[in-house]
Amino acid sequence: MRRWDTRRAAKAERIAAAQPYATGKVVDQQRLIDLLHNVIRPGDRVALEGDNQKQADFLSRTLVDCDPARLHDLHMLISSVSRTEHLDLFERGIATILDLAYAGPQSVRIAQLVEDGVVRIGAIHTYVELYARMFTDLAPDVALLCAELADADGNLYTGANTEDTPTIAEAVAFHDGVVIVQANEIVPTDQLPRVDIPGSWVDLVVTADRPFALEPLFTRDPRHIGDVEILKAMIALRGVYERHQVVSLNHGVGFDTAAIELILPTYGEQLGLKGRVARHWVLNPHPTLIPAIESGWVESIHSFGGEPGMERYTAARPDVFYTGADGSLRSNRVLAQLVGQYAVDMFIGSSLQIDGNANSSTVTDGRLSGFGGAPNMGHDPHGRRHASVTWLDLAHGEGADRRGRKLVVQIAQTFRAGGVPTFVETLDAVAAGEQAQMPLAPVMIYGDDVSHVVTEEGVAYLYKAHSLADRRAALAAVAGVTPVGRGARDVEKLRSDGLVAFPEDLGVPTRLATRSLLAARSIADLVAWSGGLYDPPAQFRDW
Amino acid sequence: MRRWDTRRAAKAERIAAAQPYATGKVVDQQRLIDLLHNVIRPGDRVALEGDNQKQADFLSRTLVDCDPARLHDLHMLISSVSRTEHLDLFERGIATILDLAYAGPQSVRIAQLVEDGVVRIGAIHTYVELYARMFTDLAPDVALLCAELADADGNLYTGANTEDTPTIAEAVAFHDGVVIVQANEIVPTDQLPRVDIPGSWVDLVVTADRPFALEPLFTRDPRHIGDVEILKAMIALRGVYERHQVVSLNHGVGFDTAAIELILPTYGEQLGLKGRVARHWVLNPHPTLIPAIESGWVESIHSFGGEPGMERYTAARPDVFYTGADGSLRSNRVLAQLVGQYAVDMFIGSSLQIDGNANSSTVTDGRLSGFGGAPNMGHDPHGRRHASVTWLDLAHGEGADRRGRKLVVQIAQTFRAGGVPTFVETLDAVAAGEQAQMPLAPVMIYGDDVSHVVTEEGVAYLYKAHSLADRRAALAAVAGVTPVGRGARDVEKLRSDGLVAFPEDLGVPTRLATRSLLAARSIADLVAWSGGLYDPPAQFRDW
Repeated sequence: MRRWDTRRAAKAERIAAAQPYATGKVVDQQRLIDLLHNVIRPGDRVALEGDNQKQADFLSRTLVDCDPARLHDLHMLISSVSRTEHLDLFERGIATILDLAYAGPQSVRIAQLVEDGVVRIGAIHTYVELYARMFTDLAPDVALLCAELADADGNLYTGANTEDTPTIAEAVAFHDGVVIVQANEIVPTDQLPRVDIPGSWVDLVVTADRPFALEPLFTRDPRHIGDVEILKAMIALRGVYERHQVVSLNHGVGFDTAAIELILPTYGEQLGLKGRVARHWVLNPHPTLIPAIESGWVESIHSFGGEPGMERYTAARPDVFYTGADGSLRSNRVLAQLVGQYAVDMFIGSSLQIDGNANSSTVTDGRLSGFGGAPNMGHDPHGRRHASVTWLDLAHGEGADRRGRKLVVQIAQTFRAGGVPTFVETLDAVAAGEQAQMPLAPVMIYGDDVSHVVTEEGVAYLYKAHSLADRRAALAAVAGVTPVGRGARDVEKLRSDGLVAFPEDLGVPTRLATRSLLAARSIADLVAWSGGLYDPPAQFRDW
Repeated sequence: MRRWDTRRAAKAERIAAAQPYATGKVVDQQRLIDLLHNVIRPGDRVALEGDNQKQADFLSRTLVDCDPARLHDLHMLISSVSRTEHLDLFERGIATILDLAYAGPQSVRIAQLVEDGVVRIGAIHTYVELYARMFTDLAPDVALLCAELADADGNLYTGANTEDTPTIAEAVAFHDGVVIVQANEIVPTDQLPRVDIPGSWVDLVVTADRPFALEPLFTRDPRHIGDVEILKAMIALRGVYERHQVVSLNHGVGFDTAAIELILPTYGEQLGLKGRVARHWVLNPHPTLIPAIESGWVESIHSFGGEPGMERYTAARPDVFYTGADGSLRSNRVLAQLVGQYAVDMFIGSSLQIDGNANSSTVTDGRLSGFGGAPNMGHDPHGRRHASVTWLDLAHGEGADRRGRKLVVQIAQTFRAGGVPTFVETLDAVAAGEQAQMPLAPVMIYGDDVSHVVTEEGVAYLYKAHSLADRRAALAAVAGVTPVGRGARDVEKLRSDGLVAFPEDLGVPTRLATRSLLAARSIADLVAWSGGLYDPPAQFRDW
């Protein structure tokens, strides 16, 4: 007679084994390590939060101190491998397999550990893929999650950085896994500002030894924006935003898109674009967007996560940001991803390397960084979609085959710092993939999904190319004197055919491309624009 | 001085205006109409649930009785336009604009009302698109939602049909809209089996006059499965599932895929495929899957919604289905969609019409049906994806351009009932789109996303075609004597090149294609397989 409740029975045993170290759902902070020893089992799949920004670091720091004789061969699912101990788990023999989406600060070490056979990679996913597999063939046995506040029943207040928590909690809570949550504080129920995740989904809560780690990943200091970024921003605004009437959009993170945000109230205003473009956004609360918001450009922003220092500002602008009944920001990575994939007209972001076919990757020599959400945002969903003016502006095909296209824009300078070319014959990712024995090269965004490339030279309208050869030629024409750009041919014909536009073709006055055009030139300017509501983290203050 | 909290202020006014008809959050059932008059305002965007299965019908029936002099020009967002009163709202002048994803039973009437100018269509979305736009440019002012149980604080238990409720609730609750929920019963908090949606997200709850409407849309009576469906199922099993080692998958709803489900424990077992294919599923709890589950084929099923009659069965099989700590099914449409788009190897579904390029649509003469989730499931996400054996089996390109492909399989009989050809020169959708002045033809699945077409003639391996001409030729070779099939040429060459396979090429013994191969031949057989746990709805019982 087959049993059909093995997961439920195992969960009941795990919860029973936790009882010596907990009162109801509340774990004795001093005994967390004993509890983890008793609840987690060798070979378990463990989802550890590991988000883009917030980190369940009390849980990860405690897990890494566990005894590898008791806990070993764990299969870790970590959206963002951000902390030293995420990899220490492997060096200590506690974990062996890793499924991830992103590995920013740990990307060099992870590449080394894979080469050494210490880390076995399941796959490098996008965020939404990794979540999706938690409901399919990678159902976790245990989740180690993170909240700002909890009550004794396990009801959670995530604060502004809701991020991945509800999605992982759902995967685990509704398939008889054990959900363990660290909270900065456990408070009486009536002191929870709101409930982001119901206690029914949570098995155990523990007060963290210190507030969870959170990085200000989306803050760009305007002082580092130079004339070239401003020129690219002007070119993008005229050649893409204005030309295609981009109403809804996602900006990647980087100085190029920060420059665009900062010239909306100046150059954008002069072009008469306010209210016509860039009205609905999906992105984290970028401080560099404050001047555009205050100038009335922005109708709505839905966010993947929060941003340290933007708590009071977002709470004071509820018409723009998504906030709860308590007034504080609510974010949600999986839903923001859907917005970025299906609701908006355009994705625009930067890349470290772009090849002649417009394939791009942030995986460069010796790094295994993953891509987070960019590959999903940076692709044109190929099936049916609702029509928008922008999407239809790129329509192609006839009859039943006719459809529009989401704008996928890559913005980059032809050379990176140190004279390293951005545009290359072959991506480093190809060799990196072979070296790490990956089934495919770790490409971030595929060239055939890219509709536009913007550089300081101009715009390549790749979507207009009828052949791969045309696409390569258009790209080369804006790639400067890089290896790709040196192959440029027939540039005048490309201009007259509209496959390429230079600043003079777009009416962009290059002489205006100076820092005078920035609505804010420093973090202090952003604070002033916010009316004192923005509280920049210490590392961004110089006053 | 600009105000930044106009939505919050409006919400506070609306909630205050509700107070005469509510005690705390609990609405006086007899005064619901007065409350709706006071809370909703002319021109509001109103998200009405309107799911694929469950219906907030007490709210919709009451809304349609409102006074058009007080409530008019509403902009309705309804995932699934399923009920008469959804369209009565427009005839009565209460609503004017409709954004939708699906309109099954109302598809003929909706087409007429659009033609008459009574209904103005915003767009026909897919489910995930419609949700995504609720976080972008279609933020609702009011949500009218549905739950099985609520408490006086607004905590909700959705039961098995969670479906769209958490996603719509999140869009509205976190952007200062008003969330109104009908529940079958309001109970003390400790009598809620679990909390699916926290009370913090809910403003008002009302006890419905009768339990919410729910249709058994995913129940297929095996008695209607004939020899041709069984032959197609055998061809699909050998030519697709076995050949490409399809481990994770989504089945559309229809007798073709039901036939596949029912021959897994017979023909599939004989082929030695158990444990090798079809292990992880995303689909509603199809009763026709019971024999495969009981035979040990199925490791996991994540569901978009529930299915009436499957409550006790799903609760008794928690290793397979996603259930809560209380033991009952939890579904979630948006997350199941992500599974279907990003985690699985294959989508397979039926269509009413397929053209020579393999474009397909369920929009046929006089119907404006929408497509729900099929266009998203039935496309190959074009950006980066994790690799699976199946996905890599369809890999193409070199170097950075190399990538795999999700299987998108269309299964269809060459002629539908009444001798109507499935394969046609031009989809009815093209004319329908023009007539309704839609920007694009309402195509469901685009031909270039389709990797395989299965008919009773054989399999067309469209992904192997190097040109549109090859693709058309391969499709024609399995299209029988339909207008498309009559154009078939060079069939032997297509067979030898592997673009087409007939039953004899696949080793499918056509003489076995009889009802004897079905593991269950009636609803009663399914009940028996379930050990009495499946409780079929009355209309499916004949004993």
